[in-house]
Amino acid sequence: MNFTEVIAKKRDGLALSAEEIGRFVKGATDGSISDVQLAAMLMAICIRGANSAETQALVQAMAASGEQWHLRESFPDAVDKHSTGGVGDTVSLVFAPWVAACGVPVAMMAGAGLGHTQGTLDKLAAIPGFVPAGQRGQAFASLERCGVVFARQSESIAPADRKLYALRDVTATVPSLPLIVSSIMSKKLAVGAGKLVLDVKCGKGAFRKTLAEARELAEALVSVAKGAGVAVRAVISAMDEPLGPVLGCAEEVREAIACLEGRGDARLLALTRQLAQHALELSGKGAEEALQVLDQALVSGRARAKFEELVVAHGGDPDPAALPQCKNRLEVTSPAEGFITAVDGELLGWVAVEAGAGRRYPGDEVDLSAFVRVLVRVGERVEAGQPLAVVGWSSRPLDREGLEQRVRRAFTLGPEPVIPGPLVLAELA
Amino acid sequence: MNFTEVIAKKRDGLALSAEEIGRFVKGATDGSISDVQLAAMLMAICIRGANSAETQALVQAMAASGEQWHLRESFPDAVDKHSTGGVGDTVSLVFAPWVAACGVPVAMMAGAGLGHTQGTLDKLAAIPGFVPAGQRGQAFASLERCGVVFARQSESIAPADRKLYALRDVTATVPSLPLIVSSIMSKKLAVGAGKLVLDVKCGKGAFRKTLAEARELAEALVSVAKGAGVAVRAVISAMDEPLGPVLGCAEEVREAIACLEGRGDARLLALTRQLAQHALELSGKGAEEALQVLDQALVSGRARAKFEELVVAHGGDPDPAALPQCKNRLEVTSPAEGFITAVDGELLGWVAVEAGAGRRYPGDEVDLSAFVRVLVRVGERVEAGQPLAVVGWSSRPLDREGLEQRVRRAFTLGPEPVIPGPLVLAELA
Repeated sequence: MNFTEVIAKKRDGLALSAEEIGRFVKGATDGSISDVQLAAMLMAICIRGANSAETQALVQAMAASGEQWHLRESFPDAVDKHSTGGVGDTVSLVFAPWVAACGVPVAMMAGAGLGHTQGTLDKLAAIPGFVPAGQRGQAFASLERCGVVFARQSESIAPADRKLYALRDVTATVPSLPLIVSSIMSKKLAVGAGKLVLDVKCGKGAFRKTLAEARELAEALVSVAKGAGVAVRAVISAMDEPLGPVLGCAEEVREAIACLEGRGDARLLALTRQLAQHALELSGKGAEEALQVLDQALVSGRARAKFEELVVAHGGDPDPAALPQCKNRLEVTSPAEGFITAVDGELLGWVAVEAGAGRRYPGDEVDLSAFVRVLVRVGERVEAGQPLAVVGWSSRPLDREGLEQRVRRAFTLGPEPVIPGPLVLAELA
Repeated sequence: MNFTEVIAKKRDGLALSAEEIGRFVKGATDGSISDVQLAAMLMAICIRGANSAETQALVQAMAASGEQWHLRESFPDAVDKHSTGGVGDTVSLVFAPWVAACGVPVAMMAGAGLGHTQGTLDKLAAIPGFVPAGQRGQAFASLERCGVVFARQSESIAPADRKLYALRDVTATVPSLPLIVSSIMSKKLAVGAGKLVLDVKCGKGAFRKTLAEARELAEALVSVAKGAGVAVRAVISAMDEPLGPVLGCAEEVREAIACLEGRGDARLLALTRQLAQHALELSGKGAEEALQVLDQALVSGRARAKFEELVVAHGGDPDPAALPQCKNRLEVTSPAEGFITAVDGELLGWVAVEAGAGRRYPGDEVDLSAFVRVLVRVGERVEAGQPLAVVGWSSRPLDREGLEQRVRRAFTLGPEPVIPGPLVLAELA
């Protein structure tokens, strides 16, 4: 097969066969297709798109390009949750122990953060001693022992995705729907959880700005999951203001603990509860029963206890006092009175990066103690001088005045109260 | 300027600024943009296209990417002729001495052949001792001395084209109109002839199969030439059956000499005469006068003498007996009687490559003595057993039976006579 002819087919908008897609993925994995040919094919896919059969073939080939864990063969009930990336998204840290405390095994694949969104791997790194499972054996042992695991995608999982992702970044082919779907789902299928809950973010702080765009992504993800025999639910959730109140590693762990102790942020808890409900429903529970079981796990302290158990199982120190503390703090106050009409999550995400809580470039060092904590929500009334947010950091000197300006700019004040939009915009099953 | 953002603009179908195109060409020339980014941009241009301002900017930037000869400053009347590549296209070898014999300086940039079409550089190489001008000084000296030069594109002319052409070949972006136009015209503008005659081929043996496709290319070339202040004429000529009777280096030189002696192929001579007429008209002659001057140059023997002069000026042996002779010959005869309804030029082009007269891959050795000579034309009546073509070669053993079959397949016989289509399909000025 001459690969230039395969590129020409996609260039002309024709559908590729599973065999041709297999050749593409094999070439990306073993280097038998040059980077320039891969780049040309990525651009052709980005502009011409891919139909659902092509997307399915791409996902399957990428999933099979490396190690496969076949998780569902050993843990048929295990559920995975995936978020497409938001600001203040502490859900995973709450979801995993909470659902596990309800008797449903949870296998979470955690990634590192980049840009204005933080990654779960970085948050877990704030817990002294915590080591995510890197190998199949470790992950399975943790699932066996305490019914929950946070795993780190090893280099041997979906190597084709690693290769293509690096090329997409420099070739302006990141926003392609079939490429986004295949990147997310290839890793999920390689690990092989039989149940999957998806949280597709939608809004100014997300990669998908409109509901139509978010729905398109959610539908494509659900279709591929179903095609691979995975039981799946998807929630499209708002991502304009930050989801939870915190952006930053150690401080998000503290917020997660607060949620598990029933004293956390109401919005964060509400979305986590809804996603957890889907997870329990995928395990055969009815909607009402699922909520009852979840609420009991929270009230009884079992969810909080499961968090401690999972931290210990991953070698971490469960004492919240052991989490890193920031050395510097800046409280940003409102310049006037009024109603909060908008909070710019993306801008606050970049402030968090500036404070050291995230990465501008892959490989950047993260200040685990750094954070932005948002103190007011859309719809609330504030007085002049009332604190809007606190920024904390340790590792470097920052321009306090510039920081203060940027944080203030993230909060829009108006003379009239506004009613916040719904948190969940749509649900797909 | 972040080049990924420039790629994203073209990916989304937006027009690029001259500055952005300049960045692209600079990056291709000096290596400051990676091959994968260049490949992605080429595919985006191939699918999204480029408007005339973008194409003009691309050509200008590519022309300025290396050495520029500024030919028209020293030789304001010098004319260049370019063919988009056909089978049996011996025109350049006849055109150059003929037009020069009429007092119009001719500066031809000759290239090597690839695939089913042969290049003028290879044909000239059949003349013992012939060395095309590789440098500006040599070319100018030859023009000064005898009013005609065959130059070889040196590595320093339009290096951006060299780079992009190599990438286009493997990224399935060869057929892109703006990329074809910029590749052709960047080299023309870098040399800088002020007058240009274009022969755009159209038909089964050409890269542009339909008149609409050929017209699109011709119009784009004419538009770019005019935009750069070049006086230009374009002819769209038929390329279904081979133009001239010969495909192959030394044998095409013999055919060119025959034309210059007034005993050559009528079709080849007719197209050359029409292109030469345009060249003379560009130098200020009226249509009638141009044809009179041309015919006198032929009948008087001045065109033939100019050919000898130009061969000597390039260090070549002007004696036709010095041209390489083939060692093996195969005469292919008609299996039946009937009328020739079609001759497949592309297929015969590949037979010529098989015989050694052309290159399958860049760098392949060419057998200068190898050729296919077509003996019958569309519309002619043939008897069973009448010779259709002769294949000659020297350098390697060939499968005579397979060769014979392929040559026979190139000739279609029918029971009724057909009238051959016109040779010139359109003219643009």
